[in-house]
Order: sequence, then structure tokens, then C-alpha cells
Amino acid sequence: MTDETIDDIMDATYCALCKHGYAELTMQDIAAESTKSKGTLHYHFEGKGDLLESFLEYLLDDFEERTETVPGETSVERLHEFLDELLTPSDAESADEFRTAILEIKAQSPYNAAYRERLTEFDRALRDRIATIVADGLESGEFRDDVDPDETADFLVTVFHGAQTRATAVDRSPERTRRYVHEYIDDVLRADGASGGDGVSTNRDHTEAGE
Amino acid sequence: MTDETIDDIMDATYCALCKHGYAELTMQDIAAESTKSKGTLHYHFEGKGDLLESFLEYLLDDFEERTETVPGETSVERLHEFLDELLTPSDAESADEFRTAILEIKAQSPYNAAYRERLTEFDRALRDRIATIVADGLESGEFRDDVDPDETADFLVTVFHGAQTRATAVDRSPERTRRYVHEYIDDVLRADGASGGDGVSTNRDHTEAGE
Repeated sequence: MTDETIDDIMDATYCALCKHGYAELTMQDIAAESTKSKGTLHYHFEGKGDLLESFLEYLLDDFEERTETVPGETSVERLHEFLDELLTPSDAESADEFRTAILEIKAQSPYNAAYRERLTEFDRALRDRIATIVADGLESGEFRDDVDPDETADFLVTVFHGAQTRATAVDRSPERTRRYVHEYIDDVLRADGASGGDGVSTNRDHTEAGE
Repeated sequence: MTDETIDDIMDATYCALCKHGYAELTMQDIAAESTKSKGTLHYHFEGKGDLLESFLEYLLDDFEERTETVPGETSVERLHEFLDELLTPSDAESADEFRTAILEIKAQSPYNAAYRERLTEFDRALRDRIATIVADGLESGEFRDDVDPDETADFLVTVFHGAQTRATAVDRSPERTRRYVHEYIDDVLRADGASGGDGVSTNRDHTEAGE
């Protein structure tokens, strides 16, 4: 497959997942969003499961590429920025639908070793990115010296999963979690944070954001 | 329906969900776990969706009853105890399977108003229980006076959802989250917590627990 064909099919898969969800998705639905025929899809992929496995792999590659460098002057800024992007992705329009489809795939994980493997890689990539930023911030003295990068990253990934699940299951905006996470970074992790005395409140502009 | 019949059908639903998962579940599967016939099930419930809706309601009632009084001398102890039970339920044997089935139902929430309503009630009940314990602890001076009970409860519910999702999606034990949550209570929420100087480490025995 050319890169162009791959991009076309993966974009179509994204659109079809948003429109139909995971359970109802058919190869025909994906073909309908693509410039390729259903025959072409079947030529490249054994079926929906196989195609979705490649889609998850594609998402991971895309994620790793996009987050190779996180903008920000300091590690604290980079950590805020990274979690911001995770919790409120810039393409918000289809975010709800896509989040639902991904949750369906997560729920399939115990029944599907290939999905589980891809999701585990993604989880690890997420943790690694966060742990690296935290470790950098420790080295530069921005974070409290008793902060453990791996443990902190693991906790933040759990919070991320929780925000995603709650947004789908009970329609609670991840925006609210975003505020907590910013507070957590500033008040619990930062060396000059609220442990100095002024509690878990924060004066960052992020906390002003609505729900 | 007598209470006995309800209990019987709900227990059967629990077992069938653990065994077959949500997507594959049939009324026949539930009948097979029950002393009742498939005909009896259909007499009481329109179908799988209707029965599962009642099952979610039953779970909520059971949860509310079980957590009406949380053991513990102090609010801090009660909060630890409550989150312990949430994150590592005493009936651990079928916990994985049941967690998977519930995640499947959460992923169905955007497509099913009745499920969404039940899940939202459950989410609210969870938050209310935690917020009440935190508010009690504030009143008794156990928690830092800038802790907001509702915000804290909301955050902890998100962490709970995250632990459940990650356990299913990438096979990560909720036990690890349990440790963080205990540290969070002791170091961030407690009036005499680590903000006094010794960082986010903790000497609670909970932290000794393996993954």
C-alpha cells in the first residue's frame, strides 16, 4: 500500500468509527468514507478486526510523532501542555464519538489479543512520555525531589482513562478533569507548589476554564 | 415478582455477564444460571436490555445499602476504607469478568438512554458518598480547610473509573491505583499530611501492598 492509500483508509476508518461506533461498524461503512472500494479494503485487510488493529497501530505512530516534542519552555509547562492536549484534543468536534468507539474497543480488549497488545503499547507510550517530562523536571529542580516519575506518570494515565470513560458513560466533560490535573501538577508535583502553605488552590488561568 | 425471584434472576444475570460478557449475552444464558425458565424471564422482562436496566438499578440499590455506613473511627479511616472496597472488592474472583461487562455497558451508554440514566445515578451516588465523608472530615478538622468535598469526590470518582478501565483494557491491576489513592488522602487531603514537609511519601501500611 502507498502511504496515500494508508492515510485514506485510516481517515475513512476514523470517520466510520465516529459515525457508526465499533459494534455496528462494517467494511462497507469504511469503504463509504473512503475513495477505495470495499474490494480494495478486503484485498489489504482480512476483515474489520484486522483493519482496526492496523488503525490502532496507525494511531499510536501518529501519537508518537505528534508528541515527540511537546511545546513549552519548562518541564512544568510541557507537562501542562501535554495533558491539556490529551484531555481536550484540538479536534473536539468528533471527539465524543471517537472516544465512545475507543471505549468500545477497550471493552473488547479481554476478548481480542491484538487489540489488547495495541492498547497496551499505547498505554506504555503515554506513560513514557509523561515520565520523561517529569524526570526532566526533576533534574531541573522544578518538581519536588520525592516525586517518582514512573509512579506519577502511571497515576496521570489512570486519571486520563477515567476522564475518557466518564465522558462516554455519564456525559461528564473531561474539561473538569483537566482543571484538577493542572492543580495537581502545580500543587502536588511542583517544588514551589502549594505544599509551601497556600493549600490545593491555584491561580493558574486553567482553573478559570468552564466545565 | 417476589424478592426471592428478583434476587435469583439478578444473581443469574451477574453470573451470566461474568461468563459471556455483555455483547454475547442472551436471555437463554441468564436462564441457564437461574432456577427460572427463559419463559419466566420473558414474562418479567421485555428482553436483555430491559433486564440489564433492572440489573443496574439492583446494583445501585445494593451499593447504597452496603455503603450506608462505612466502617472506621474517623473520616480519614472511612475514606480509606470506602475507596479500598471500591478498588479491590472483596469478591475478587469474578471481579475481572464483571468489570469487563460493566465497561461494555458503559461503552453502550451513548446509544442507550436507560443505561446512561442508571450509570449516571450510580456515578452520582458514588460522588455523594465520598463528598459526605470528606465534608465530615472537614468539619472534624481532619482535612485541610481548603479541600472542596464535591471537587475532591468528583476527582476520586474519575480515578476510580480510570482504574477500572485500565484493568480491563491493558490488564493493569487496580491495586496500584489503590496505593496512590491512599497516598493522595494522606498527603494531599489530610490537615496533618505531607504538606507539613515530608513530601508525597507515606508510611501507611497500604503502600506496602503488592500490585
